[in-house]
Amino acid sequence: MSKFRLAVIVALCAAVVVPAFTRTPQAPASSPAASAPDPKLIEDLVYANRILSDQGVVDAFGHVSARDDKDPNRFLLARSVAPALVTKADILEFDRNGEPIDGRGRAVYLERFIHAAIYRARPDVKAIVHSHSPAVIPFGVTGTILRPIYHMSAFLGAGAPVFEIRNGAGMTNMMITDNKLGDALAKSLGDGTVVLMRGHGSVAVGDSILQVVHRAIYTEVNARLQAEAARLGPINFLTPEEAAKADAQTDSMASISRPWELWKSRIGKID
Amino acid sequence: MSKFRLAVIVALCAAVVVPAFTRTPQAPASSPAASAPDPKLIEDLVYANRILSDQGVVDAFGHVSARDDKDPNRFLLARSVAPALVTKADILEFDRNGEPIDGRGRAVYLERFIHAAIYRARPDVKAIVHSHSPAVIPFGVTGTILRPIYHMSAFLGAGAPVFEIRNGAGMTNMMITDNKLGDALAKSLGDGTVVLMRGHGSVAVGDSILQVVHRAIYTEVNARLQAEAARLGPINFLTPEEAAKADAQTDSMASISRPWELWKSRIGKID
Amino acid sequence: MSKFRLAVIVALCAAVVVPAFTRTPQAPASSPAASAPDPKLIEDLVYANRILSDQGVVDAFGHVSARDDKDPNRFLLARSVAPALVTKADILEFDRNGEPIDGRGRAVYLERFIHAAIYRARPDVKAIVHSHSPAVIPFGVTGTILRPIYHMSAFLGAGAPVFEIRNGAGMTNMMITDNKLGDALAKSLGDGTVVLMRGHGSVAVGDSILQVVHRAIYTEVNARLQAEAARLGPINFLTPEEAAKADAQTDSMASISRPWELWKSRIGKID
Amino acid sequence: MSKFRLAVIVALCAAVVVPAFTRTPQAPASSPAASAPDPKLIEDLVYANRILSDQGVVDAFGHVSARDDKDPNRFLLARSVAPALVTKADILEFDRNGEPIDGRGRAVYLERFIHAAIYRARPDVKAIVHSHSPAVIPFGVTGTILRPIYHMSAFLGAGAPVFEIRNGAGMTNMMITDNKLGDALAKSLGDGTVVLMRGHGSVAVGDSILQVVHRAIYTEVNARLQAEAARLGPINFLTPEEAAKADAQTDSMASISRPWELWKSRIGKID
Repeated sequence: MSKFRLAVIVALCAAVVVPAFTRTPQAPASSPAASAPDPKLIEDLVYANRILSDQGVVDAFGHVSARDDKDPNRFLLARSVAPALVTKADILEFDRNGEPIDGRGRAVYLERFIHAAIYRARPDVKAIVHSHSPAVIPFGVTGTILRPIYHMSAFLGAGAPVFEIRNGAGMTNMMITDNKLGDALAKSLGDGTVVLMRGHGSVAVGDSILQVVHRAIYTEVNARLQAEAARLGPINFLTPEEAAKADAQTDSMASISRPWELWKSRIGKID
Repeated sequence: MSKFRLAVIVALCAAVVVPAFTRTPQAPASSPAASAPDPKLIEDLVYANRILSDQGVVDAFGHVSARDDKDPNRFLLARSVAPALVTKADILEFDRNGEPIDGRGRAVYLERFIHAAIYRARPDVKAIVHSHSPAVIPFGVTGTILRPIYHMSAFLGAGAPVFEIRNGAGMTNMMITDNKLGDALAKSLGDGTVVLMRGHGSVAVGDSILQVVHRAIYTEVNARLQAEAARLGPINFLTPEEAAKADAQTDSMASISRPWELWKSRIGKID
Repeated sequence: MSKFRLAVIVALCAAVVVPAFTRTPQAPASSPAASAPDPKLIEDLVYANRILSDQGVVDAFGHVSARDDKDPNRFLLARSVAPALVTKADILEFDRNGEPIDGRGRAVYLERFIHAAIYRARPDVKAIVHSHSPAVIPFGVTGTILRPIYHMSAFLGAGAPVFEIRNGAGMTNMMITDNKLGDALAKSLGDGTVVLMRGHGSVAVGDSILQVVHRAIYTEVNARLQAEAARLGPINFLTPEEAAKADAQTDSMASISRPWELWKSRIGKID
Repeated sequence: MSKFRLAVIVALCAAVVVPAFTRTPQAPASSPAASAPDPKLIEDLVYANRILSDQGVVDAFGHVSARDDKDPNRFLLARSVAPALVTKADILEFDRNGEPIDGRGRAVYLERFIHAAIYRARPDVKAIVHSHSPAVIPFGVTGTILRPIYHMSAFLGAGAPVFEIRNGAGMTNMMITDNKLGDALAKSLGDGTVVLMRGHGSVAVGDSILQVVHRAIYTEVNARLQAEAARLGPINFLTPEEAAKADAQTDSMASISRPWELWKSRIGKID
């Protein structure tokens, strides 16, 4: 049945009509989903990949996922490929443990457990970005807290926590290669929006693909601005109250759809 | 009558014929203008939007307006859309209180009161840019005064003031969402050319679209250069007298039309 | 006769054959040149304008000139236009005092006296760039001396001098608007390759268009690298002896023609 | 015989037929190779040149070489030309002393001895990049050690050594213009992956073209991130153990082929 669902995804992506009689009732025990994810979700996920690359948040590494809108125990994520090159056909489905439902023999991201663990821990999260967003890296290794310097990054609230993989795991290759490490990372994130990873990168979460892309991009912008400001003198950050009020405005769908349309316009048509 | 004027704008912009019977006689008392704004003004305003985006002063947010050349109680500003995507058909007209004359059902910028308030307070101002110009943000949050480091930004004079929204308004969402906040901002601007907004962005004003675009761009350039210089040592700024003399040259129409032509050449044809 | 020479330039530029009989003997007293400048010189000067813009040394302002290869008392410089937009038809000829031989009614650069004064003072100089090259500005206003951080900028020798217009001229508009100010600037340059102008920009000179473009670009690169290095710790610069030895290699025609071909390849065909 | 091999390369690259009678039997004693290098190696080397330029590691200067897969005493390197312009026909073969087997009358890089010396000293090295990679320069002149700030640059291990040409050679033109200087540089590199050159640039080595390109690019990225972080506070670098573990993952063929495909996609077809 999981093969069936994937077939539906593929079919929808390729705009091929799948005859109704192929929708057989052999549902898998784990995930008795009635239908494939919304094709719009897959399209947005492809745009998210391209936009994050175009905006300099990801290079050849980093990935963005979305929770399946039909089955909350699953999420969508590209096969192992640079985000700038992702097409609809590259989107695979993963179960709650981070394993591909049907990998179709394609290599998958080593760090897919980042996504799996956070979707398990945070039912409110619908989309996740992991990146090595360059301006953010220095904040993960110096103890300087990333805080909202202006209203556009008010979602940073009282500041982003830093995940130290050495605590608990000791000397590692720095990567989130299993669910145990994923759980530890999710714990550092807590109920926040962004968590930095010392010597590695960061993770942003959101209640939609649009929101998480917005947050990932403005996290990078905030890091750039904060680093510049720190050299001029002590920074007058948004207070937590100002951040909460600004966030209600700047992080809303009304606000984030404007840049989304701009970013999309730079990408053009996708496959 | 105002509806009639808007209809003319729409007709000119979109080359759509508006049937004569829509030209009803219900003119508002406030603004009995006889004719529509100069089409050249609207064209320049569209170029201003695109140029400010191309030059990195605005991203998906920020806006530029122009006072109506036929009715000084009105100003032109795009509907709520990223500046890079603005076309002639997106330009709406607003009254002196920042309300659209005829919104045509389209969303408008939340912070249009920045423009309304300054046009009310400063009859000499014909065009306004509000942006989150990145290099300028750090100066708004650190107390370091933005001052003219070279002749090209001599319009900064003795330095740009900073608007602190907390004074008077306390904890807010940081945005200028009504006329009262707009008036407070206009008061901070005083008779200057640029005012920074703590934790938010900045505003530049000018006596023409060309001049305000020039000022917004060179405010950003000055911020970048000043931040760099501050790391090398104490800066020998233009004295107020040098700034006044340089400004008479570099901020003149003869001088600012040269970059305008270059910036326009990068945009190409507009709709 | 000056009109005749310009006509020849125009004719050569446009690849129009000028009949021999138009070469009449009415030579002007001041400059009895027998023939027009080499068309290759004009072509290279147009490329120099475009390259300096493409490489970020000039924006809408700044200019590059070349001494006339046929008449050392004259130099070639564009009319007042952004360097990125210069075509062969924009190149005018100027006399040793910085006045256009035949302006053809076109606006000329206010600061052409920079070129005139240096050509008068330095017979070895064949080409000059004046720019507001951004990374260089901070060195002109902080007292930090611009020195060669690596072999590519060895032409900076023991460091670039800074021209302080206040010395001698007091409070000005910062610009070199006459020959007296030009002479003062030339005196600051001395027998060097680059001089910075406090609160304004810089000037590079060379024995060919290729060399001066090379020097202007690597002056900007050196400034960027030196500012970065200064933040990491005290800099181990090239010694004057190392600089002299490296300069003999990196500033030679064999070395500078390689980047010139690359930079030209980015510009494509010119008019 | 070596002439024959070169003729084959030329024929393969330029698809030009070389008449059989030019295949004379005067083979040098040193290198009786039976066949030409793999055409894929030459294609990858051309891509490496273009990628390093596109990614900002090299400008008009800098070069990348590969050890001949058929004859380990030889290496492939372009004639003297900007890397962005290299085509297959520009690739020449050099002997173990850095001399062209058959220069075909074309100018060669002055610093080809960097490559020759390292190939002699390090049998494990199959590809070498020399560049003036901008963010790396400051680390070569300030004593600040370039160390791995995140997993992607774990190949930097305990930090990159710096080659000081003054030690042993005194005052020079800073360049590696003979084998003696090349040997000294190779000695500074030791068994490492990257060596900086004071006042000049850096060298990266790898066991394949893909790996050395990956290392050269992430050396530049690490330098940028480390310089930024240094301004925020003391940096918590990867420990040598973390670096070793991360390197085993991020520097593997599985990992480096992902960015290679992305970087290639930006170049398009090559000649």
